[in-house]
Amino acid sequence: MNVKNFKLTRKSKECAARAGILKTARGEIETPVFMPVGTQGTVKSVSNRELEEAGARIILSNSYHLYLRPGTEIIEQAGGINRFIGWKRPMLTDSGGFQIFSLQTLRRIRDEGVEFQSHIDGSKHFFTPEKSVEVQKKIGADIIMCFDECAPYPCTKEYAARSVDLSVKWAQRCRQAMEKPGPSYGKGQLLFGIVQGSVYLDLRKESLERTVDIGFPGYAIGGLSVGEPKDEMISVLDAVSPLMPEDKPRYLMGVGMPEDLWDAVERGMDMFDCVLPTRNGRNGQAFASCGKVNIKNAEYVRDFGPLDPECDCPVCRGYSRAYINHLFRSQELLALRLLSLHNIYFLIRLLEIIRKSIETDTFISSKKAFLSKYAKDET
Amino acid sequence: MNVKNFKLTRKSKECAARAGILKTARGEIETPVFMPVGTQGTVKSVSNRELEEAGARIILSNSYHLYLRPGTEIIEQAGGINRFIGWKRPMLTDSGGFQIFSLQTLRRIRDEGVEFQSHIDGSKHFFTPEKSVEVQKKIGADIIMCFDECAPYPCTKEYAARSVDLSVKWAQRCRQAMEKPGPSYGKGQLLFGIVQGSVYLDLRKESLERTVDIGFPGYAIGGLSVGEPKDEMISVLDAVSPLMPEDKPRYLMGVGMPEDLWDAVERGMDMFDCVLPTRNGRNGQAFASCGKVNIKNAEYVRDFGPLDPECDCPVCRGYSRAYINHLFRSQELLALRLLSLHNIYFLIRLLEIIRKSIETDTFISSKKAFLSKYAKDET
Repeated sequence: MNVKNFKLTRKSKECAARAGILKTARGEIETPVFMPVGTQGTVKSVSNRELEEAGARIILSNSYHLYLRPGTEIIEQAGGINRFIGWKRPMLTDSGGFQIFSLQTLRRIRDEGVEFQSHIDGSKHFFTPEKSVEVQKKIGADIIMCFDECAPYPCTKEYAARSVDLSVKWAQRCRQAMEKPGPSYGKGQLLFGIVQGSVYLDLRKESLERTVDIGFPGYAIGGLSVGEPKDEMISVLDAVSPLMPEDKPRYLMGVGMPEDLWDAVERGMDMFDCVLPTRNGRNGQAFASCGKVNIKNAEYVRDFGPLDPECDCPVCRGYSRAYINHLFRSQELLALRLLSLHNIYFLIRLLEIIRKSIETDTFISSKKAFLSKYAKDET
Repeated sequence: MNVKNFKLTRKSKECAARAGILKTARGEIETPVFMPVGTQGTVKSVSNRELEEAGARIILSNSYHLYLRPGTEIIEQAGGINRFIGWKRPMLTDSGGFQIFSLQTLRRIRDEGVEFQSHIDGSKHFFTPEKSVEVQKKIGADIIMCFDECAPYPCTKEYAARSVDLSVKWAQRCRQAMEKPGPSYGKGQLLFGIVQGSVYLDLRKESLERTVDIGFPGYAIGGLSVGEPKDEMISVLDAVSPLMPEDKPRYLMGVGMPEDLWDAVERGMDMFDCVLPTRNGRNGQAFASCGKVNIKNAEYVRDFGPLDPECDCPVCRGYSRAYINHLFRSQELLALRLLSLHNIYFLIRLLEIIRKSIETDTFISSKKAFLSKYAKDET
């Protein structure tokens, strides 16, 4: 972690937006970047080749899910997550914290760690910061995340304060656990710290300060996009982002709506992930330049144009709205694929457009142009 | 239909197997050929591009399903089925007969046609030979099929005889209905006749003779692979195939198990379709050179080799058995895609191997070599 992993290549003259290059063991990633989510080691319904062709530079997986199934032992035998799933580019795993703290099943939080029950078979497990890092080492992604408590929204300030304190202590332990050797395929893993603190700005600042004191090659803002009003998210970004180390990548976890991506990049964030492109895709909702398209709607039954006339993805080049509408009505699997792929392509392309606008100092006008069209006939 | 649409390029010196070229409005098809089934205008879970890359020269669709949903009006507006679904190569539609006669819902057969209820909304419809041809003209596939009665198995000889008589009369009416003009995109459609007669060889011969008397550019054998023992199918092929016009393509409907394909080509059949590669794929069963692979089995949890070590399809090149096993256990959509695509690739490739063996007069030894391996560790 002593090597310089992140290089800013351009700072916007118009706002806090920045373009950079993040170096990982499996390749370089141009930022700002959207990272498709492959929870169980697969971006739902989409193939590796399609992801590569869509321009995905890095994808996510989920330590909680992979730990439970197929289990770290099998991933180790395969030679790490990349070899197991056949993905050659960089990977990021989250720590499992978010999933564990979202579980409806019994869980108990202690200073030591958290006890939880598997959503698959009800079996009991105990995760500590050390355990999470050990699991993530065995999985072997290029970027791994500190095990933290993601506080629910809303929560009291007292709860949030205790949660920040716990997460900072856990971050320290994760940092120490990194010193332990892991499988060779995980060499060069970067461990990112996570800023928590709910919507309480002073807690957010405290969380950032104490996390930066520990020292990580990258910092994430967690606990947003968990149900809070949009302006609360903006407030947190406005308060925290200017204080984040400039020479380190900044990752806004779980955010992926097009309008939010513009707002977050404008405030200096570099990395994003979200399940929406695939989840919404499976529900029949497509992103398009002209706004969202609910492809199951009757208006598309005879619409022989592409999902998004301005998109050059394989779905828009090969299939019509009317056909995809037919596929959904006929409950055909291809429907889920096509919309998921288009949506991923749309967000990856959007971040490319945003990056370009930073490099040409046209961020503000580009954002305005995008949003005026995108919001126009939103359904 | 006056043009020569079929050319035999090679007759095996070892058996009745033949290689040929079938010319259609949207391109030439080398026979023997396997045709993937896209019932509702999509080969389940597989994209057009994947089908093309797998070497699919022609795919099937289903008049019954397309007539009910999205309906012929929308397909007409799109400019025919190929444009509607974005498939550029030849298409074949069956007449709807097989589906209608498989319906559990109320249906009444009369000389005029058959009344049935939609499996989607229970609405009542009446199909006649003329209606089926009209629907198939509007759908616009390159090859269309006569509307016939596919007798259930088992059925009495009396039932089968009446059914043959009805199907022949309907074939005559289909032939006449072809004279009526249809949409321009359906130009050059080839209407194939269908031989019925259940397992009664004299009825099969009568059906063939009377159907050939009407005169079609191709002939299918229907009503097999509907539950009869395998040797009954072979008996029918042995009895009927030698009597079929040599200069016309011969289509064995609904057959697609690897061993059956060898047996049928050996007896002079040219075209095949089957839902098995996709249906079995969705159930976790893969074809492989070494026999069938039930990928959900525990033995594959740690098997990091490809589905079929001898296969060079994108699935075998990019993914392991262990990973696909994980995808099935995790109920991931990608699992269905990968196995469906591999199975389609396997059967298309198998027919290419068979064709090659005909051209080099090594059919018998090739068949033996394939089956000795394939049957060995069948699960």
